[in-house]
Amino acid sequence: MAEPSEDQIARLRLIRSENIGPVTYFQLLARFGSAAAAIAAIPDLAARGGGRGPRLASCASVEREIERVARLGARYLFLGQGPYPPLLAEIETAPPALIVRGHLALLDRPAIALVGARNASAAACRFARGLAQKLGEAGSAVVSGLARGIDTAAHDGALETGTIAVVAGGIDIFYPPENEARQRAIAERGLLVSEQPPGTEPRARHFPSRNRIIAGLAQGTVVVEAAPRSGSLITARLAAEAGREVMAVPGSPLDPRAQGCNQLIRDGATLIQNAEDVLEAVSPLRVRPFRTKELDYAPADVPPDVPEDARAAVAALLNGTPVPVDELVRQSSLPPAAVQTVLLELELAGRLERHAGGKVSVVA
Amino acid sequence: MAEPSEDQIARLRLIRSENIGPVTYFQLLARFGSAAAAIAAIPDLAARGGGRGPRLASCASVEREIERVARLGARYLFLGQGPYPPLLAEIETAPPALIVRGHLALLDRPAIALVGARNASAAACRFARGLAQKLGEAGSAVVSGLARGIDTAAHDGALETGTIAVVAGGIDIFYPPENEARQRAIAERGLLVSEQPPGTEPRARHFPSRNRIIAGLAQGTVVVEAAPRSGSLITARLAAEAGREVMAVPGSPLDPRAQGCNQLIRDGATLIQNAEDVLEAVSPLRVRPFRTKELDYAPADVPPDVPEDARAAVAALLNGTPVPVDELVRQSSLPPAAVQTVLLELELAGRLERHAGGKVSVVA
Repeated sequence: MAEPSEDQIARLRLIRSENIGPVTYFQLLARFGSAAAAIAAIPDLAARGGGRGPRLASCASVEREIERVARLGARYLFLGQGPYPPLLAEIETAPPALIVRGHLALLDRPAIALVGARNASAAACRFARGLAQKLGEAGSAVVSGLARGIDTAAHDGALETGTIAVVAGGIDIFYPPENEARQRAIAERGLLVSEQPPGTEPRARHFPSRNRIIAGLAQGTVVVEAAPRSGSLITARLAAEAGREVMAVPGSPLDPRAQGCNQLIRDGATLIQNAEDVLEAVSPLRVRPFRTKELDYAPADVPPDVPEDARAAVAALLNGTPVPVDELVRQSSLPPAAVQTVLLELELAGRLERHAGGKVSVVA
Repeated sequence: MAEPSEDQIARLRLIRSENIGPVTYFQLLARFGSAAAAIAAIPDLAARGGGRGPRLASCASVEREIERVARLGARYLFLGQGPYPPLLAEIETAPPALIVRGHLALLDRPAIALVGARNASAAACRFARGLAQKLGEAGSAVVSGLARGIDTAAHDGALETGTIAVVAGGIDIFYPPENEARQRAIAERGLLVSEQPPGTEPRARHFPSRNRIIAGLAQGTVVVEAAPRSGSLITARLAAEAGREVMAVPGSPLDPRAQGCNQLIRDGATLIQNAEDVLEAVSPLRVRPFRTKELDYAPADVPPDVPEDARAAVAALLNGTPVPVDELVRQSSLPPAAVQTVLLELELAGRLERHAGGKVSVVA
């Protein structure tokens, strides 16, 4: 592939900087029109927000990462550009950049996520393997997280037809270790996906982030055996929040491993018994046109600065309790763009925390 | 109990006559104000419908039945009178009379029907027994059909707290034979219910009729293990048609005995894992006032006869394909009461067949 452009290098610098998550990243690009302009503006923004601003990733560190990605036979996909998966681009917290290795053409197929318990029963693993195989034969890409149990079974069932593994750490880190050969096989014959730079050891906070990518890539997520309050249920919730189909395989109430799935069904997930049920459930989504959304990062039509009293007005409305940004706009009677600018400044100054559902609070 | 009144004897004569099912029975009483008046009018009605009319049950045969019911320690409940169960009275084809033996007070409790496969797994039977026990402890009467498998387990679980068994044949017929002791125990400690006269051997057509009583008595029906196209699914459908809650216990797709229940859940039944789930599902129904609906059988305000051209008009609209009565009213432009009278005449003449959903056709 082509070397990353200057713009892509600037994007990576932003993405790899501390305190800049997907939402802040989008706002910076929307506000300044390019990553380079955003980087130039950050020190001033942070100062207005009352802090020294995030430590930005250096050009050198990003260039080392780019070199490492190339050495691994991998490449970047940037949100809003080229073959970045369009369904993933639709979620609120779409990763600004992905590192992928393998068959990119798999991203053009309708995808089904198949997730479940790491300590699943042998019967459930066999079921998941068979389901993945049937879904693959029907033309779906099967997405999972390369964990033990159901994830492993799903990848195995769809290895011949096309499977996508999203890992929580770097694509060169093998976790769990016993899946090293499987991860290598998927990088060769399927597609391996990560949001983190190579060498990243997976930590607890990486798993929910990984789960949003699994849910975001797929038209629907099928859960096979899941304990209450497990990671699979988080993936299911993220799928629901993204407007995707949530499906679950039922089990006897006498089997504790079926409780999470049975509860999902009680909460409205579609009960799934076989691949036909899955394909029927997602069929309304299949008519959706698969086009890449080219994001428009032209600078937003807002003044480059906001009046000082706007800062005071927004700050007065904020405390440690998360509050919707919409609410701040209503209560302050300021233009939405001005409120967003003030929030961005506070965030870059390390004084604002963002929460699910577009809520914000001040850092305690 | 008191001897049946003259009116009740006349009602039983109508009920036990050939070709007079619940719908015809209601129409006769609504049209003529009393069973005695209906009996007197039937020969004329049938003649106008072009036949000789049904063979009416004799006074003597009905008196023999009444004596036999008394000897069995049982009694009658007549629709619209006294302790006839009010929820059952609400269904379209409520039995005009029931024969019951045992604790009538059980009819005052909110009831849950628990049905399922005769060849259920041991685990499912254990689950059903435990569920019935919990529901009983929570104050529900548990209704079932005294069949092998799930029905038997449900009755056993609720025998101490209160169970209602609806049998397909006469209350003195033990079917299946191995449940004789159980049927006797329920007649002593619970409540035994039948629509058929004593001595009736259960035949295939009696089972769906029995199932409508099970569904009709209960606020909701729980299905535990059911094969596709089984009797339990008929009970579930009848419960849904009566506006009651339909609930099902899920199972692994790998277990063929779970397919009927899983399909029910896919079709909208509430997934049930325990007694709390059942009670939560029916709780909106529990606020419904439990009052006995006193049916008003005053003669309908229609002319005792209809013009001859009305008969020709309705007959011209009928053929072997079931058609809704509403449709006949619309197409004939006749008053609804006139159409009903013509249909009643045809039915008593043995020339009309009634179908589910208020449809009628001519007898082939």
